Amino acid sequence: MLAPKFDANGLVTCIATDAASGELLMVAHMNAEALKRTIESGEAWYYSRSRQALWKKGESSGHAQRVVEMRVDCDQDAVWIKVEQQGAGACHTGRRSCFYRVVPLKQTGAVALEFRDADKAFDPAAVYKK
Amino acid sequence: MLAPKFDANGLVTCIATDAASGELLMVAHMNAEALKRTIESGEAWYYSRSRQALWKKGESSGHAQRVVEMRVDCDQDAVWIKVEQQGAGACHTGRRSCFYRVVPLKQTGAVALEFRDADKAFDPAAVYKK
Repeated sequence: MLAPKFDANGLVTCIATDAASGELLMVAHMNAEALKRTIESGEAWYYSRSRQALWKKGESSGHAQRVVEMRVDCDQDAVWIKVEQQGAGACHTGRRSCFYRVVPLKQTGAVALEFRDADKAFDPAAVYKK
Repeated sequence: MLAPKFDANGLVTCIATDAASGELLMVAHMNAEALKRTIESGEAWYYSRSRQALWKKGESSGHAQRVVEMRVDCDQDAVWIKVEQQGAGACHTGRRSCFYRVVPLKQTGAVALEFRDADKAFDPAAVYKK
């Protein structure tokens, strides 16, 4: 049975990948209510730690996520959703994926990031206008 | 520059995928030291919340992870590593991936999980014998 192991803040980690390409789109969190709504509706709901609020993906941007499959990991503290990403991208910076910077390896000290797959897919200023 | 946003417990989330297949293998956590060692060595180090200890992946099982690429997400509270998984699998239950159970959607109430890609890749009792 599904028995999520929520952390001290009542959250599980959620990984969203593109159902077609397998691309990692974003990592976010779900509380019990977000998880319940996602399971019931088949649309991704999250819990924003910064805004301390339940959040339907796409409610501001229109970039909703239809969940094709959900899985849970061995100790049930992380869920993985394969989604059809609506609109141009998942990231609030305007990229398709939140993971648009590489961390170079085999070095010590301060690490300069390298942009990769970082083209803007949409204009966040236009999409998130309040 | 890399400037990880560690949570109240000093951790970032780490997603490990198979560098060749793209398969999601596991989700774990890194503290500053685990992240530093991973960057320096190109081998995956994690921080175990349950054991409260730094942990080199494979130190018990032999199933180490060589990091092919590391990325960081937009707000730098999650890292993604694409790895060459040594040995038969990443999951302590003996599966290739920790995500071997599906959560069926469009339902309410208690949710029965469904096994998927759940064949044992190795015998954990043999691999983790102390």
